[in-house]
Amino acid sequence: MSTRLNHAFRLRRRPDGALVKDDLEFVEEPVPEPGPGQALVRTCYVSVDPTSRVWMSDYRGYMPPSPLNEVMRSVGVGQVVESRRDDLPEGTLVLGWPGWQEYCLTDEASLIPLQFPFLPLPDPLPAPLTAFLGVLGHTGLTAYLGIDIGRPRTGETVVVSAAAGAVGSVAGQLAKVCGARVVGITSGPTKCQHVTEELGFDACIDRHAPDWQKQLDAATPDGIDMDFENAGGEIMDHVLMRINVGARIVLCGMIDTYNQFGPNTPGQRAIIQLVMRRASMNGFLVLDHLDRFNEATAHLAGLLATGRLRYRETILDGLDQAPEAMAQILNGNKVGKMLVHVADPIPR
Amino acid sequence: MSTRLNHAFRLRRRPDGALVKDDLEFVEEPVPEPGPGQALVRTCYVSVDPTSRVWMSDYRGYMPPSPLNEVMRSVGVGQVVESRRDDLPEGTLVLGWPGWQEYCLTDEASLIPLQFPFLPLPDPLPAPLTAFLGVLGHTGLTAYLGIDIGRPRTGETVVVSAAAGAVGSVAGQLAKVCGARVVGITSGPTKCQHVTEELGFDACIDRHAPDWQKQLDAATPDGIDMDFENAGGEIMDHVLMRINVGARIVLCGMIDTYNQFGPNTPGQRAIIQLVMRRASMNGFLVLDHLDRFNEATAHLAGLLATGRLRYRETILDGLDQAPEAMAQILNGNKVGKMLVHVADPIPR
Repeated sequence: MSTRLNHAFRLRRRPDGALVKDDLEFVEEPVPEPGPGQALVRTCYVSVDPTSRVWMSDYRGYMPPSPLNEVMRSVGVGQVVESRRDDLPEGTLVLGWPGWQEYCLTDEASLIPLQFPFLPLPDPLPAPLTAFLGVLGHTGLTAYLGIDIGRPRTGETVVVSAAAGAVGSVAGQLAKVCGARVVGITSGPTKCQHVTEELGFDACIDRHAPDWQKQLDAATPDGIDMDFENAGGEIMDHVLMRINVGARIVLCGMIDTYNQFGPNTPGQRAIIQLVMRRASMNGFLVLDHLDRFNEATAHLAGLLATGRLRYRETILDGLDQAPEAMAQILNGNKVGKMLVHVADPIPR
Repeated sequence: MSTRLNHAFRLRRRPDGALVKDDLEFVEEPVPEPGPGQALVRTCYVSVDPTSRVWMSDYRGYMPPSPLNEVMRSVGVGQVVESRRDDLPEGTLVLGWPGWQEYCLTDEASLIPLQFPFLPLPDPLPAPLTAFLGVLGHTGLTAYLGIDIGRPRTGETVVVSAAAGAVGSVAGQLAKVCGARVVGITSGPTKCQHVTEELGFDACIDRHAPDWQKQLDAATPDGIDMDFENAGGEIMDHVLMRINVGARIVLCGMIDTYNQFGPNTPGQRAIIQLVMRRASMNGFLVLDHLDRFNEATAHLAGLLATGRLRYRETILDGLDQAPEAMAQILNGNKVGKMLVHVADPIPR
């Protein structure tokens, strides 16, 4: 076997901005020999995902970065071509992490038979092999999970960015199944047409149109109830400016920012931590909850009475001091609650 | 009564950046005469809040902007000094929206007796009158609600920005009551000392220190489980870079951004819509939910079989095309799932 040659991409350097030629090296190496308990897999398809770009960077992601000088990490499907494992006979189709290379050993690549954890795998396959890296694979599950979190309802307006992509295309169709009005955002008229005509979205905005923001406004006359966010950046910013009360932002990815993770390419890098750490951000407003004033006041007054809660006030004297009070709030030159004393009450 | 003079701040112009002198005009006007069913209120204290700055701007907030040429909106407490309303006899303490002025009519300012919706109001008051605009008022309830949303648990690390402010100071103490380790962020050593020594936070970071980020890292060695966010901007960005899996960001305000709402002061204006619209943003990750692959695949395969779900793939041929595939994902020049074809499987 060792006369066969393996080709692989090794990550030599972390991209600073967009990927350039010398960041990866295309190497020719001997195909590894399977040892006892190992099987050799020939890669059939490798997946290239937006997250691949994040793995190339030295960024605090949900996994460590793809190590320098190692084969670039990726999901893929392959086939066992030589086996010293009883459970993986030659010909078995496997799914896992081969990386961007032609051959790998099963245990190094966490490869598992394709039929698990999927449905039992009939022969012939229920869909082309490629579907197990897409609509019936990790991107399909991603779309399914995001819609499950955002729970679009009949009559609601859902926006999906990167709508022609592997995740967005499925997410939008699932939102349609839920009865929502679905507006996609993608780049270029050809993909817009695909999104509306082939995928059945109600509308699709071309983000390269000079008036894309106005177009999105017009396509979402009742605002936006759920956002399946794949883009980030100015796309997400504009979508947020149109959300309705109680909207759900399902943050799946922010591909517009992924070329900004290099040391000399500053950009918006923090919000995506909500994905990396599976975290939530909830806005709230006191005016919605005036019915809880009694409950809160009782709790706070009790803590005050027992000395477990302390507070300070900064009180400026005279109504004419109101702008100064505002300035002190904004520049931080005050402690505690800022008030302006106007007049003393007359004792009752 | 009309010989008395009222003083008021009228909003003449929307600030562009920090508030400057001519944005507000301090006017002298006749005190209004209460008509039938009205009462005249003399303002005792007006509240000045970070949100006041937002109301001055032409920004899509949770309320319309404070109208130009009107008295600047604010919460306040006052006392009825002349009444033609049986339910509000002279001397009644009232709470509501007097605005930044010395006198107002009850119905124009939505003023209500102070004892409602609070606890029954004893005489003397259970706390100074000022407390009803702070710790026992809207800012206290805000802190209470935010902690209720974030639910800090014993042993967790909670970060509170604007920790010496009206909301942050209470929020941090409530998190302590919940058993969390609480780290504040404020400006200047004096306020830091107040936060730790008087309010009992476990640590407090001076954001003006050149190494404040390193100090925050050191003060949160186990990461951050909950963030009570009042600052936004670079404070929030750094906090987000330290959150743990499953962290909750309770987004209360982003005061660092409020001077950026003018037409010529661009800044981060979108995320605060989560507050304005009481919305949520949830990050999620497919790898956490592999146990749902079967469920998702069954659903998706069913939709595929009935033609309700469609998909496309973009497949480049040859492993050497992987970098090109990546480039096409980042620049949007592809449709659907991006794959690289490496080899065909041998029929089983």
